[in-house]
Amino acid sequence: MSMQLNETHDPALRSWVASANTADTDFPLQNLPFCLFRRAGRDEAYRGGVAIGDQIVDLGAIGNALDDAAPAARAAAALGALSSLNALMDAGPQAWSALRLALSRLLRGDATPRQELLVPQAEAEFAVPAQIGDYTDFYTSVHHATAVGKLFRPDNPLLPNYKWVPIGYHGRSSTIGVSGQQFARPRGQTRGPNDVEPSFGPCKRLDYEMEVGIFVGGGNAAGAPIAVAEAEQHVFGLCLLNDWSARDLQAWEYQPLGPFLSKNFATTISPWIVTLEALAPYRAAWTRDAADPQPLPYLDYPALRASGGFDVELEVLLQTAAMRRDGLAPTRVSLSNFRHSYWSVAQLLAHHTVNGCSLRAGDLLGSGTQSGPDASEAGSLLELSAGGKQPLTLPNGEQRVFLEDGDTIEMRGWARQPGRPRIGFGAVAGTVLPAR
Amino acid sequence: MSMQLNETHDPALRSWVASANTADTDFPLQNLPFCLFRRAGRDEAYRGGVAIGDQIVDLGAIGNALDDAAPAARAAAALGALSSLNALMDAGPQAWSALRLALSRLLRGDATPRQELLVPQAEAEFAVPAQIGDYTDFYTSVHHATAVGKLFRPDNPLLPNYKWVPIGYHGRSSTIGVSGQQFARPRGQTRGPNDVEPSFGPCKRLDYEMEVGIFVGGGNAAGAPIAVAEAEQHVFGLCLLNDWSARDLQAWEYQPLGPFLSKNFATTISPWIVTLEALAPYRAAWTRDAADPQPLPYLDYPALRASGGFDVELEVLLQTAAMRRDGLAPTRVSLSNFRHSYWSVAQLLAHHTVNGCSLRAGDLLGSGTQSGPDASEAGSLLELSAGGKQPLTLPNGEQRVFLEDGDTIEMRGWARQPGRPRIGFGAVAGTVLPAR
Repeated sequence: MSMQLNETHDPALRSWVASANTADTDFPLQNLPFCLFRRAGRDEAYRGGVAIGDQIVDLGAIGNALDDAAPAARAAAALGALSSLNALMDAGPQAWSALRLALSRLLRGDATPRQELLVPQAEAEFAVPAQIGDYTDFYTSVHHATAVGKLFRPDNPLLPNYKWVPIGYHGRSSTIGVSGQQFARPRGQTRGPNDVEPSFGPCKRLDYEMEVGIFVGGGNAAGAPIAVAEAEQHVFGLCLLNDWSARDLQAWEYQPLGPFLSKNFATTISPWIVTLEALAPYRAAWTRDAADPQPLPYLDYPALRASGGFDVELEVLLQTAAMRRDGLAPTRVSLSNFRHSYWSVAQLLAHHTVNGCSLRAGDLLGSGTQSGPDASEAGSLLELSAGGKQPLTLPNGEQRVFLEDGDTIEMRGWARQPGRPRIGFGAVAGTVLPAR
Repeated sequence: MSMQLNETHDPALRSWVASANTADTDFPLQNLPFCLFRRAGRDEAYRGGVAIGDQIVDLGAIGNALDDAAPAARAAAALGALSSLNALMDAGPQAWSALRLALSRLLRGDATPRQELLVPQAEAEFAVPAQIGDYTDFYTSVHHATAVGKLFRPDNPLLPNYKWVPIGYHGRSSTIGVSGQQFARPRGQTRGPNDVEPSFGPCKRLDYEMEVGIFVGGGNAAGAPIAVAEAEQHVFGLCLLNDWSARDLQAWEYQPLGPFLSKNFATTISPWIVTLEALAPYRAAWTRDAADPQPLPYLDYPALRASGGFDVELEVLLQTAAMRRDGLAPTRVSLSNFRHSYWSVAQLLAHHTVNGCSLRAGDLLGSGTQSGPDASEAGSLLELSAGGKQPLTLPNGEQRVFLEDGDTIEMRGWARQPGRPRIGFGAVAGTVLPAR
């Protein structure tokens, strides 16, 4: 996939969908992210859709609208009309790019308006966009790893492997839900610092983690690693991901084999997947401290230093039950950026497969919590509250160290560059219900 | 599911399939394990089958053979004829039991022989029997955990959580293969004890782990834990599992989030799944040392102490390339027993779901390496070679500390009790190819 800019990136493009031309939309014509949706309250199949302003282009209703487009675009649209996006993801970057170009032309201001292709986002319900065969969670923010490491291992915050190995572990596919997910506070074993024996009960240190999700496009055969220089061709796109975490369960269970029940009760993703092609104008340099080691050859590639990262701002907002009751909007608790990631997306795929492990279309990778260098950029309450010691005071006077029942966490993400429209990821929201 | 014995367990039963009545078969009429198979070399669909002697009852060819059986048995056979066993697994213990009874009656010596239902096992090829949504690997042998802990943490071999928490982590679904799997020696980062920096190359400490696989039958909704007393009703059956492990990769990567590339390049399972009903006469007492803590209430249940375990012998055999060339049979390197497991199968399911995590039909759990208390019962080369320090000498004079290219590991399992036929799990074999 060429990361060169093309006509779909032209900042001057406007759409006949008026809501796509406003300054505050996440979904101008230059974005065109994918989702899986259906009209809410109807007994109809989920199918693929593409955001434009406050509307969705229904790939299941495309009919003859792309008859003038390239055959590859028509074929990709047909795959996008299926009940999951796996087949479209598997089709590869030429197919994704052909469909993007065709949709861009279809929706431009000088094209004939085709309202019959549109479903208002307000009338849609969304689903997890792919059958996720395997979900892997990484740990790519050195700022997060250092801050959390200090809490778990004060004498040894950043382990010796961190700056050599993109640390990751396998997560749970069965409990990944789309924005709007609600889940009961998990129960489990914990042992306090002064306890001899563990006890069982509801989690007392429930947290979120602000992450970027990476949907794998075309996979690789077992035994055939993905080379780092080609790895981005295997990425369908990025979404937002909330890796809900039960810190007290994690502290007691995680040695020696890593997090398990502390993570696998729920993971929430945004409905929208922004393609790498849409993000091409919003790439970031990949930088290291002078003392940091150079990546091993299988993790190094020509484009890494100039444009290995993504300049995507990541915002976390909290709305408590009391705020909701009083009509108060969610309040920002942090703002970070994906460009702080110590490892690039391409490095994650290359590392994941270098031992012969196979990825499949629809697999999901989590970036790990995207904390930045400043304290206000921390991607979890564990960091914002200094391990639960310093409560956050919210605008209505409420305080939080960890999440309480009824709290909703909303994450938003967007990319912007001078002279270009801002493109957004929409939102991922999830709500904590009381323990059963 | 009642674990009481019924007519299908009668030790006197004989079959019209003569090979099922021999003393050395794994598959007498009292066993009836499931597989997914097709005739080798033919362009036909995989479907379910049931072993009897050296034959397979083809569930795709059952026709009117069960017309006299209960409707539940006919319905279950129809699900078993599909291209994966997920639907049959999801049907629940009444369905599995009805089908077992019907097949037992169909195959008895006094029934009319129906050769047209049979496919010789020698003419079949097998597949992973279900679409495995999530794969979880546990760590249930306290003997393995202690022995390995000594190598990684000499001063602290068994961590404080071990005897309270059934330790587990999520593994990789995409690289699970059926017996016969071959894979290239994985490559990756390692750092020796005297090295300042890591290096990249083929794994030098490649190992196997002898485990029992547990296929989940009916799952649970997210947020609705499976109670430990009912957990066995959610287990379709057991198989053999080889958790291939790259010890040098593991030592460098595993902190703080657990094993990743050291495990996810390959996992091999036996084609046969032995149901819990078949294993009912071969249960084992579940015992603890007097000083061990009692399980927390969510992990305790009435049947635990008398019959929580399974008396299944587990054998590991090694055949090197030289042995294969010289016509030498695989040689036994260890013999253990699943009854040594510190945690019961029911406890694994209850723990896995107590936080609200959902299991789905077809999910696979690994028991963890089943090492017994004696050194000859060690389920990995890491233990047998004392961390690579004491080579094993094979009958032909070759030595091994870890696996070499061309080595085949074969695992076998069986259960026996006085006055009852021995029932077996068949074999799971896998071969290490040279690194790419």
